[in-house]
Amino acid sequence: MSQFVSQEAGSLAPYTPGEQPVDLQYVKLNTNESPFPPSPKVVKAVSQAELLKLNLYSDPTCGMLCRSIAKRNELKPEQVLAGNGSDELLFFAFRAFCGEGKGAAYADITYGFYKVWAKFFNLESTVIPLREDFSLNIDDYMDFPGTIFIANPNAPTGIAVPVREIKRLLEANPDRVVVVDEAYVDFGGESCIPLLYAHDNLLIIQTFSKSRSLAGGRIGFALGSADLIADLNRVKYSFNPYNVNRLSIVAGAAAMEDEDYFRKCTSTVAQNREWTVGALEALGFTVLPSCANFIFVKSDRIPGGELYRRMKENGVLIRWFDADRIRDFCRVTIGSREQMELFIGEVKKLLGEV
Amino acid sequence: MSQFVSQEAGSLAPYTPGEQPVDLQYVKLNTNESPFPPSPKVVKAVSQAELLKLNLYSDPTCGMLCRSIAKRNELKPEQVLAGNGSDELLFFAFRAFCGEGKGAAYADITYGFYKVWAKFFNLESTVIPLREDFSLNIDDYMDFPGTIFIANPNAPTGIAVPVREIKRLLEANPDRVVVVDEAYVDFGGESCIPLLYAHDNLLIIQTFSKSRSLAGGRIGFALGSADLIADLNRVKYSFNPYNVNRLSIVAGAAAMEDEDYFRKCTSTVAQNREWTVGALEALGFTVLPSCANFIFVKSDRIPGGELYRRMKENGVLIRWFDADRIRDFCRVTIGSREQMELFIGEVKKLLGEV
Repeated sequence: MSQFVSQEAGSLAPYTPGEQPVDLQYVKLNTNESPFPPSPKVVKAVSQAELLKLNLYSDPTCGMLCRSIAKRNELKPEQVLAGNGSDELLFFAFRAFCGEGKGAAYADITYGFYKVWAKFFNLESTVIPLREDFSLNIDDYMDFPGTIFIANPNAPTGIAVPVREIKRLLEANPDRVVVVDEAYVDFGGESCIPLLYAHDNLLIIQTFSKSRSLAGGRIGFALGSADLIADLNRVKYSFNPYNVNRLSIVAGAAAMEDEDYFRKCTSTVAQNREWTVGALEALGFTVLPSCANFIFVKSDRIPGGELYRRMKENGVLIRWFDADRIRDFCRVTIGSREQMELFIGEVKKLLGEV
Repeated sequence: MSQFVSQEAGSLAPYTPGEQPVDLQYVKLNTNESPFPPSPKVVKAVSQAELLKLNLYSDPTCGMLCRSIAKRNELKPEQVLAGNGSDELLFFAFRAFCGEGKGAAYADITYGFYKVWAKFFNLESTVIPLREDFSLNIDDYMDFPGTIFIANPNAPTGIAVPVREIKRLLEANPDRVVVVDEAYVDFGGESCIPLLYAHDNLLIIQTFSKSRSLAGGRIGFALGSADLIADLNRVKYSFNPYNVNRLSIVAGAAAMEDEDYFRKCTSTVAQNREWTVGALEALGFTVLPSCANFIFVKSDRIPGGELYRRMKENGVLIRWFDADRIRDFCRVTIGSREQMELFIGEVKKLLGEV
């Protein structure tokens, strides 16, 4: 830090993203990307004609994109806000719904950015431990008076909370916002979107990064009542009104409209997940029950950190978190069948099984 | 605002961006975009091969883009940070270098977002009036102990502060950061970049939105000492690490490398500006001396608000700010010669000169 830094910036606790080697020499199973390219409709939509309009600002309301998201999810466009990735929208939610006297609650083992944003806004955070088996006990949140953030399915565990449990939480206190981060919901989880009709204290965050093969396009979206979306827009227009670029707007709209491709990609990933889980269990691994495009695994035969390092040496990137409770585990993104076979092959070699 | 909004979000004062009609039916001279498409090298760089990689996250360090910016400006890559438009980087600068006991100073008439960000971070703001002729008196800033934000050339006036004056400010107090927002510098202003060699308290913000014809690509960049850039990175990694998407990274790098196209576009805009100024002065308009791709103009024959409204009725969008000191003026973006002739034609009709 320089001598010039503000005390507030000095006390931030920045997030460490997963490694992003630019030379693509690894089998990359470390940041939960889709192994499939974006829909052919996306490739077509980002046309020369669109490129030639890049001299003009993007639509700050992202109207075209929000309409396609609204239509797909049977909501009104004013119930949708697009962002520069779901991270930006979660940041907006932390500002819009938390502050002095309105703290944030989240699990001890969950998306690592929640605590970073809580620190950014100097919030009082209530960290609620998951059960021993890493499942979330919704009753632990019932009496919390501030804003609740739940990743569902959770990361890095992949474990989902049933929607009926979220519903119970929404009903227990209608004066409190519950933010459900559904980044990974499309791979077998159950979305809370149907709850939006009856619950104006529910905010859902989703992303194009995983199930829509657009991590590099940086597009997330928030769904909620028009009032909650308006609150998020207050933050957006106090920060960066043109937050989504022109090409991502057209790419996102095209991706949202290709339902067949979406279903094919997500179901293939789910099948590859089941295959990988089977192969790892046959090798004696413990695999947490995942509804996501990744699995959280451990083996008594090799410590998590060593598995991560040895796999990296052998050209396969997975993710290891050097943190309490989960140090024994590695998180493995589910890629193509070919990638997963290669991964399993390397694991077998490592364990001397071939 | 909903019942759920935090007190902090409730007291934000969101920015109002210029109108962005999506149907392109207007001659659009209201948001300082380039009238020219991006460089042919940009169109080529955003290739099908790049589109097919959108399933992978962008490089969070934007290495390729930062290297091209560094090379063009004879700096080291670690002296560069790329952002989702220069707005995002200015926001980072407000957090990195302002806070409790470290206020922000800026002019009364300047980029309207400075006061919005100051409010976002609940800063003590010192608003320093420009002189009667809208020039900035650098001596007014000499004793300010916090962080200083100067748009140079200024918006919406177009008036520039000489670099030797900024140098004097940097030298007067080396323990204080001066942020120079050079969004419009490429149209005839003088950049402070050469001062970076000797002054580690200088941060420069530039953008691809104006002189590089990439407003819709959302790319800005900050230049400073490696230490100042590291401070900004603390903020970035506490907010949204993947802040620039894949296509904007390749588009930006290609644009930065096409120096000829850049020079052609910026010199054409400067010529069109001189032509437009001449035509308006012949009609009795007062035009502030502009180094930017816009001019700030008024006429005794028609109030600013009326000029704006009547021009809009006739298909030409310009910008009017309903604010003290500048209510008589309109800001007119300098477009192509054809657009400016059309604009002048409409002004003449309005004043009954044809």
